[in-house]
Amino acid sequence: MEISEIGEFGLIDRITRDMPLRQPSTRKAVGDDAAIINYGPDRDTLVSTDLLVEGIHFDLTYVPLKHLGYKSIVVNLSDICAMNGTPRQVTVGLAVSSRFTVEHIEQLYAGMRLACEVYGVDLVGGDTTSSRSGLVIAVTVIGDCPADKAVRRSGAHDTDLICVSGDLGAAYMGLQLLEREKVASAGQKDFVPRFEGKEYLVERQLKPEARADIVALLAREGIEPTSMIDVSDGLSSELLHICKASDCGCRVYEERIPIDYQTAVMAEEIGMNLVTAALNGGEDYELLFTVPLHMHDKVSSLDGVHVIGHITKPELGCALVTRDGNEMQLRAQGFNHMAPAENSATAAPADPHNEETAK
Amino acid sequence: MEISEIGEFGLIDRITRDMPLRQPSTRKAVGDDAAIINYGPDRDTLVSTDLLVEGIHFDLTYVPLKHLGYKSIVVNLSDICAMNGTPRQVTVGLAVSSRFTVEHIEQLYAGMRLACEVYGVDLVGGDTTSSRSGLVIAVTVIGDCPADKAVRRSGAHDTDLICVSGDLGAAYMGLQLLEREKVASAGQKDFVPRFEGKEYLVERQLKPEARADIVALLAREGIEPTSMIDVSDGLSSELLHICKASDCGCRVYEERIPIDYQTAVMAEEIGMNLVTAALNGGEDYELLFTVPLHMHDKVSSLDGVHVIGHITKPELGCALVTRDGNEMQLRAQGFNHMAPAENSATAAPADPHNEETAK
Repeated sequence: MEISEIGEFGLIDRITRDMPLRQPSTRKAVGDDAAIINYGPDRDTLVSTDLLVEGIHFDLTYVPLKHLGYKSIVVNLSDICAMNGTPRQVTVGLAVSSRFTVEHIEQLYAGMRLACEVYGVDLVGGDTTSSRSGLVIAVTVIGDCPADKAVRRSGAHDTDLICVSGDLGAAYMGLQLLEREKVASAGQKDFVPRFEGKEYLVERQLKPEARADIVALLAREGIEPTSMIDVSDGLSSELLHICKASDCGCRVYEERIPIDYQTAVMAEEIGMNLVTAALNGGEDYELLFTVPLHMHDKVSSLDGVHVIGHITKPELGCALVTRDGNEMQLRAQGFNHMAPAENSATAAPADPHNEETAK
Repeated sequence: MEISEIGEFGLIDRITRDMPLRQPSTRKAVGDDAAIINYGPDRDTLVSTDLLVEGIHFDLTYVPLKHLGYKSIVVNLSDICAMNGTPRQVTVGLAVSSRFTVEHIEQLYAGMRLACEVYGVDLVGGDTTSSRSGLVIAVTVIGDCPADKAVRRSGAHDTDLICVSGDLGAAYMGLQLLEREKVASAGQKDFVPRFEGKEYLVERQLKPEARADIVALLAREGIEPTSMIDVSDGLSSELLHICKASDCGCRVYEERIPIDYQTAVMAEEIGMNLVTAALNGGEDYELLFTVPLHMHDKVSSLDGVHVIGHITKPELGCALVTRDGNEMQLRAQGFNHMAPAENSATAAPADPHNEETAK
């Protein structure tokens, strides 16, 4: 069976099915943004790992190595933030082919160091080896949170409010822009890419940030989300993750999805549906979370947080309510690097818990 | 500058130089078998990560995927054992090209599951993605030990005894055997490889074990090593790591290095110096450790542990004492996948702390 037939999430489902757990310290294994481990009475340890592969996750034609280093750390820190935790340490594994020089690797590490500095985390270990082709970066992050306080995907309840930080779709539009300029530059010497008026999109794609500030803000305001996930694969995909894990449905309102002006301009330019970009564009690394309904006023007043919908009973399914009041079933197209090609429809009358990709 | 000019350890030295640490919980970062993190009063957390790359670390022509899965977990567990700790959890990152099917990945995971079962550790997370070519496996292991009891590379003192578990060189000879049979099989249908009488070598290469049993044995006997490392890159390389980290020299005795009969037969067959194989053959995953001199009788009586030499003052350098009483300076050729080619001499009149590869 080809892996593309079942996609990344299908593959993970298969290989981790009935995985027995033997250590009393393991509180939550596969299936959330990070694993939860308990080694002491006060704190839980959180662990998450990510691989970034050249040609799949990044294109060195337009991604500077320093930015790549920064991003490779940040996307992992984001997984700890998505558990409402604090990242503490990272390890870095690198496989590099012979076309990379010492100076290249130093640039990559300069970005990693900068990310460690900005987020106050320590690089504590790693492994460096050769590869036959291209660059592979494996980052593992360790963090913590007060014992039993990690926010999972599974805690959302009927009537909870759905909130998202920042804005969505900009990182995806940044990728479209970079790809467009790459095509335009082909064979041209001294090519100058046209990024004027779209600097935000480029920054969102090349230098994303983990929303540790939102985690801190929620703590200051005494808000404990009932569920949380980071938006790495697109809003639709993440909403379906939460709804599947929490056994519930949801309604999100098109008009409430926060979208930056530059994102809208770029979508217009390339003739792409703006909602499609916001629902399925990946790599925003914003936090998507739910809070009890009674927190409406409190959460609505937070800077940089938007209430975009609410949780429903599971039988109502997962849908987007469009500006004209229609409901469109949510499907996970997302940013799944192994997704089957036929899964590329944005929204379709399908099962709300699309078994192929939502988990 | 080409990476091959400075090698893996040189590269790691450069990129981790002056790496500031910000988290009070970070006790030891880069430079040992595992990082040491403290989250509570009683236990320290140990973290180690490894990348295995197709074509560099393994050849799927003769490595069954299940064995590869088993080995990829075990080599990481070995790093926690090398700190005198207990492995608890692992995460697995996989990058797979399109030539791998779901069934292939299930075989790989069957080996990983088996290793988790044998060593009682939990697989708690991971990441699965595409690669453009070949298979990359990134494993991170988390373990623990009593607070401040992790055994580092840096604690060896003058007159300490040098001990090693099991025997050395067999995994390397297993690799030579597998390579020989691969060459012999080229273009032949129904080729049957000749492994009779050499089953141990094949097993040592394809299905190594982490010496958690030795860690348990030392604990039972009340023996706290002053320093420890696992033999992944070869005895010479590991001895130099300990001597550099501990600022000391060493003498090991050729006649005391434990070598299996099958290893000796194979070395004879391929015309390779047996001591070279034992000093520089990697992937044995035995434990190399030092204990105070007064423990001589106790450690000598342990099953499966051999005293092979002793630590000296640093000015005496690191040397092998041959059967005829000569001294040969130790050099780290080891199993360094990025080592410069000219570094392939076994032993040479060089600086005992070869800056290029020993760290």
